[in-house]
Amino acid sequence: MLAFGPRASVRPAMISRSAIAAAASRLAERVRHTPVIEVDGKILSCHYAVKLKLELLQHTGSFKPRGAFNRLLTATIPSAGVIAASGGNHGAAVAYAAQALGAKAEIFVPTGTPATKINRISGYGARVVEGGQTYADALAACHVRQEETGALEVHAYDHADVLGGQGTVGREFEMDAPELTHVLVATGGGGLIGGVAAWYAGSAAVISVEPELCPTLHTALRAGRPVDCPVSGLAADALGARRVGVLMFPIAQMMVADAILVPDEAIAAAQRFLWEQLRLIAEPGGATALAALLCGRFVPPPDARVGVVICGGNTDPGKVVSN
Amino acid sequence: MLAFGPRASVRPAMISRSAIAAAASRLAERVRHTPVIEVDGKILSCHYAVKLKLELLQHTGSFKPRGAFNRLLTATIPSAGVIAASGGNHGAAVAYAAQALGAKAEIFVPTGTPATKINRISGYGARVVEGGQTYADALAACHVRQEETGALEVHAYDHADVLGGQGTVGREFEMDAPELTHVLVATGGGGLIGGVAAWYAGSAAVISVEPELCPTLHTALRAGRPVDCPVSGLAADALGARRVGVLMFPIAQMMVADAILVPDEAIAAAQRFLWEQLRLIAEPGGATALAALLCGRFVPPPDARVGVVICGGNTDPGKVVSN
Repeated sequence: MLAFGPRASVRPAMISRSAIAAAASRLAERVRHTPVIEVDGKILSCHYAVKLKLELLQHTGSFKPRGAFNRLLTATIPSAGVIAASGGNHGAAVAYAAQALGAKAEIFVPTGTPATKINRISGYGARVVEGGQTYADALAACHVRQEETGALEVHAYDHADVLGGQGTVGREFEMDAPELTHVLVATGGGGLIGGVAAWYAGSAAVISVEPELCPTLHTALRAGRPVDCPVSGLAADALGARRVGVLMFPIAQMMVADAILVPDEAIAAAQRFLWEQLRLIAEPGGATALAALLCGRFVPPPDARVGVVICGGNTDPGKVVSN
Repeated sequence: MLAFGPRASVRPAMISRSAIAAAASRLAERVRHTPVIEVDGKILSCHYAVKLKLELLQHTGSFKPRGAFNRLLTATIPSAGVIAASGGNHGAAVAYAAQALGAKAEIFVPTGTPATKINRISGYGARVVEGGQTYADALAACHVRQEETGALEVHAYDHADVLGGQGTVGREFEMDAPELTHVLVATGGGGLIGGVAAWYAGSAAVISVEPELCPTLHTALRAGRPVDCPVSGLAADALGARRVGVLMFPIAQMMVADAILVPDEAIAAAQRFLWEQLRLIAEPGGATALAALLCGRFVPPPDARVGVVICGGNTDPGKVVSN
């Protein structure tokens, strides 16, 4: 189950279960405890029902407010407010959390970010700044601006309080589906899977799923350290961090059981499956974990109780149903 | 709270809570216990959080399998199988239930039923027959055919076992949100609201919401008996029964606290609200109950704890987001 690196006894996890439980208390009035729903296992090549955690029903349409609120609620927010770089979902979450807490927010996005995501961020009262071609460029522009203003930076994934907040997804999933032996999670920069793996801490096999065109954690685990990867394809707006976080990486080495890659066609098929079976619209990144099961890249053992986190829904529904 | 007719002591409800509890046991392995999710009350002019029951996540994309399974599981199904008339959702549910139970199914739909609904019905293995211009015409054609074949008819709403099955929506809602004082439910032929009102039996105010262009229950309650109504507009495919059922009508007289009408524009706005707030795609009939709250036709008292059943999602998502 712990495939890639040193044992837990050698290098302790940086995010403890108690830190995640504390985050859950902090977030209780701020985020939704999202529901878990069953899908017939047979149609997913599983012996038992598959449990889906519908985290796309979270405020702002993705899991990101968990980390954003946990970061803001454990920091002292200066009068300059908060600042973040984002491909979209994290920016919307930071804007939403800042608005809820009465703080100003400034969000740096890559040029070419869809108008719908920009409108969502500005709709929560944040100032949106286009900064560079990629998420990495926007992050660099964000850092320059942060030095000017002194605003609190909310990193999209590489901060202990962000990881602790995202870990509450794992805590809720275990509460609502304690029988799970395998939990599939999509990986971008690694905030979600880092938090979820830290929560389960080996008690269930937490499995990373990435698009073949965004193989950031897969590559890092094989290299033994976070390395830059080219990123592109259907889910790059959500999973297109070029390099996983340094905080999540040792957690992944210890606590992530496997890192699976799926083709973009499987992600589109998983989006269609969620619409056909559940009338749910997931964005490509939100359907990526399920794709591993649907396309057979993850074949569960016969006695497996499989859970899947459906982590975002910010997309154009017309693309899901017609693609 | 009991606005329209004789008291419960004068005319007992035809569907008892124990019949609904028995239906729930019967259905336990067949239908999903759908989740309840909170929405901030402030944005809906409510003092407390509003609870939405996400019945659009039910198998086949609407609440209809509850009634269909309860009917089929309490009857002896002849070798000729089952037969039903439907505008779409009931037909899909009967086809789904028949397939699950190994029975043949024949579904009569009005001409002009969208190909997506026809494909869904035939996708569950049923034979689809176009019969007449309206639901009433399809029902007449269904009855002629039923006399030929001897198949078991599954009425879309006017049968005690169908009402009992739909009533399990109310039972689950009360289990998951026992604090509710007001429950909003969309009405077509009245199967859902009849079952839900029979479950609550006055312990919460069950409120009917219909499109202005399908005012079937509203008109019947004022007439003191089920009467034919012209039906048209955005939600007519789901809520366009011309006349409410004779079994549900006395339940509505006793147990439905109010019958509200909403314009089609409010239904479209409720669809957009569900997408913006929750990334959910509801069909027009599925968003109709929420529309009453959004457009101010239902103004809850200050201390109300309001629940809303979101009862179906079988629509083209492109229409929801672009309309």
